[in-house]
Amino acid sequence: MSLIVKKYGGTSVASLDHIRRVACSVASARDNGEQVIIVVSAMGGETDRLLQLSAEITPIPSEREQDALLSTGEQACAALMAITLESIGQRAKSFTGIQLPLVTDNKHTKARILELPTDLLRKTFETGFIPVIAGFQGVSEDGSITTLGRGGSDTTAVALAAALKADCCEIYTDVDGVYTADPNVCPRARHINIISYPEMLELAGLGAKVMHVRAVELAQKYQVPLVVKSSFNGERQTWIINEEDVMENYIIKGVTLEKNVSKISLIRIPDRPGIAYKILSPLADAAINVDMIIQNVSIDGYTDLTFTIPTTDLNKATDLINQVAREIDALEVQAANNIVKISAVGIGIKTNPGVAAQMFKALAAENINIEMISTSEYRISCVIEEKYGELAVRAVHHSFGLDHNKETSDQE
Amino acid sequence: MSLIVKKYGGTSVASLDHIRRVACSVASARDNGEQVIIVVSAMGGETDRLLQLSAEITPIPSEREQDALLSTGEQACAALMAITLESIGQRAKSFTGIQLPLVTDNKHTKARILELPTDLLRKTFETGFIPVIAGFQGVSEDGSITTLGRGGSDTTAVALAAALKADCCEIYTDVDGVYTADPNVCPRARHINIISYPEMLELAGLGAKVMHVRAVELAQKYQVPLVVKSSFNGERQTWIINEEDVMENYIIKGVTLEKNVSKISLIRIPDRPGIAYKILSPLADAAINVDMIIQNVSIDGYTDLTFTIPTTDLNKATDLINQVAREIDALEVQAANNIVKISAVGIGIKTNPGVAAQMFKALAAENINIEMISTSEYRISCVIEEKYGELAVRAVHHSFGLDHNKETSDQE
Repeated sequence: MSLIVKKYGGTSVASLDHIRRVACSVASARDNGEQVIIVVSAMGGETDRLLQLSAEITPIPSEREQDALLSTGEQACAALMAITLESIGQRAKSFTGIQLPLVTDNKHTKARILELPTDLLRKTFETGFIPVIAGFQGVSEDGSITTLGRGGSDTTAVALAAALKADCCEIYTDVDGVYTADPNVCPRARHINIISYPEMLELAGLGAKVMHVRAVELAQKYQVPLVVKSSFNGERQTWIINEEDVMENYIIKGVTLEKNVSKISLIRIPDRPGIAYKILSPLADAAINVDMIIQNVSIDGYTDLTFTIPTTDLNKATDLINQVAREIDALEVQAANNIVKISAVGIGIKTNPGVAAQMFKALAAENINIEMISTSEYRISCVIEEKYGELAVRAVHHSFGLDHNKETSDQE
Repeated sequence: MSLIVKKYGGTSVASLDHIRRVACSVASARDNGEQVIIVVSAMGGETDRLLQLSAEITPIPSEREQDALLSTGEQACAALMAITLESIGQRAKSFTGIQLPLVTDNKHTKARILELPTDLLRKTFETGFIPVIAGFQGVSEDGSITTLGRGGSDTTAVALAAALKADCCEIYTDVDGVYTADPNVCPRARHINIISYPEMLELAGLGAKVMHVRAVELAQKYQVPLVVKSSFNGERQTWIINEEDVMENYIIKGVTLEKNVSKISLIRIPDRPGIAYKILSPLADAAINVDMIIQNVSIDGYTDLTFTIPTTDLNKATDLINQVAREIDALEVQAANNIVKISAVGIGIKTNPGVAAQMFKALAAENINIEMISTSEYRISCVIEEKYGELAVRAVHHSFGLDHNKETSDQE
């Protein structure tokens, strides 16, 4: 009997009708002899409603309490899913992060999983119940409720699949898989049938909203086959698997636009060893991911340093950096959030130097200025002005020959 | 330093503005040197919203999952209260039933407290944090989320006050204490300054919505002084204390109307020993409280049995009784929910036989038929047709001389 972890995102459980349709599909999977474990996000809009409530109280809520607040969304949805499953003749039990327990570190709002025992889950499905897990949440070793960061339900699902050695982990969402670009931005984007973990990692990390990046990391680490599919339209899907199993027809797999990007610049700082560490280590301590870093050429022993961070961390990061700036006697701190990051992703970018040149050319042809550049094994990224974001995606997508000619063509 | 448990009901935390006002009042209590523990209900309307969701799925939701669903209301409110306290310079930590843990039996939707360790709470307030407890909820020994029944946050508060040997337990609500009758039904109802535990128990058990009955039982058992006061109007309050400390001017303390009443009749059942046990024990097993029981005089070895239960349990009870009826070959099962129970409550009712007669006379004067009667040490109750409920309260209240003559007079 195959064991499958099925994760349903907020749009798949947006209403009681959606939940009922999911429950029916789970029931027929069970009837087909699959052993099923369900992971749910909060009902669509619920997390935003809760965030709005705390934002009305204070712009900087206690992170421990923010986690306790947000985790109720998934808990309520898991209970509603279990109620629905029971109402159609299945037996089901919901579990929160504390109940499993899914043990994490104590970095509230972006905790990492330390431990995930499976005895309770095995006992649950061996006694005929479908376990319904509230995604996104865990419990720290001191007993506080933690969350895994927005989209963390994907991570919950993959972690469960890994811990239970499940046959695969199905991620249900409102799209039927991964595309070469966001079809809302780029109408000629193609559907991708198979993609490798590292390519998907880059896409996920760069704003393709289909999968949570840590979930892909975890899937790669534990070799969990992932499938992304639509909850309500079963025709197409995207498999995310090992690099060696992907047949490649295109160097560039996709083009992404990341909007949650801000930059902070420290102007005129002493150019001496250890200064970057001094500036960036408080951010690391606060679990803020610094992405691209640029340090200018030194003049008279002084330099400028610019780095990008998620916009959601901008307030916190600016406070920390202002403090450091006083300590190191920087002339000025500048912060901006009117930028975006456009990236091209694919296996072999590093070994095909023409790729970067082609991307720069496509942007130049549209008169778009590049503010920062970074590259990796699987991608090349440019920071540009926010207002050019969508135009840039279409231009780069076209220049790499990714455009399809008819409505439903797949990339393969 | 005095230690006080403050419980805020749904109307006291109905909006973020309400929560802010509560937080400010808690902060000034702290500034006055009080050690404070807060217990909160769900925000006003939230529990109904969640109940509505599960009712849309099925009329008989899984009770384990119903508890998991409802408990999110108090959890979210506790987190929002902690966020608010932190935003005004206090330090606060929210805790759910699982986190404390408040251990209960596994009777879902009406669980009873088995154990309530205080180490975590003491550590929390000794390190300068205000503990904010999500009321109403606990955890069974097998790790499932349980709830204590509607209004159970009162019970949580009193249990905490008892376990911590607090100086008193303050119950904040939308009224400034207990009245001789519901002022909405009976405009001439008086405010009560002091009432004994057993009188309050009867009032609470009979539909006076100010306090949850199990909370009063617990307060009596552990001798926790209770104060009922308005969250936003601090002038009057009602102390609930030991019987011997109450100066009594009136035999009748109050008149209540209980609307959540249904009756089930079994027609023509064999009149033999053990039959009542056979009928009622399945209800006890299902934790349904049977209130008044009437068995008719036996004719030809057959009799009829009628009993009342909370209307919320009517569906479940009818199912159980239909089963029993088949087993014992009853002629018919009748169920009705168009009845109410009116009660007069006070110390010494049993020893003042004139009280019952006076009540019957007042009802007869309004042409109200009495369907069932029951008495106890502290009360006399009559089941009547629902439509006469409010009229009956005013008539009985008046006949016992409880009416006040001016707007604000207290009963003392």
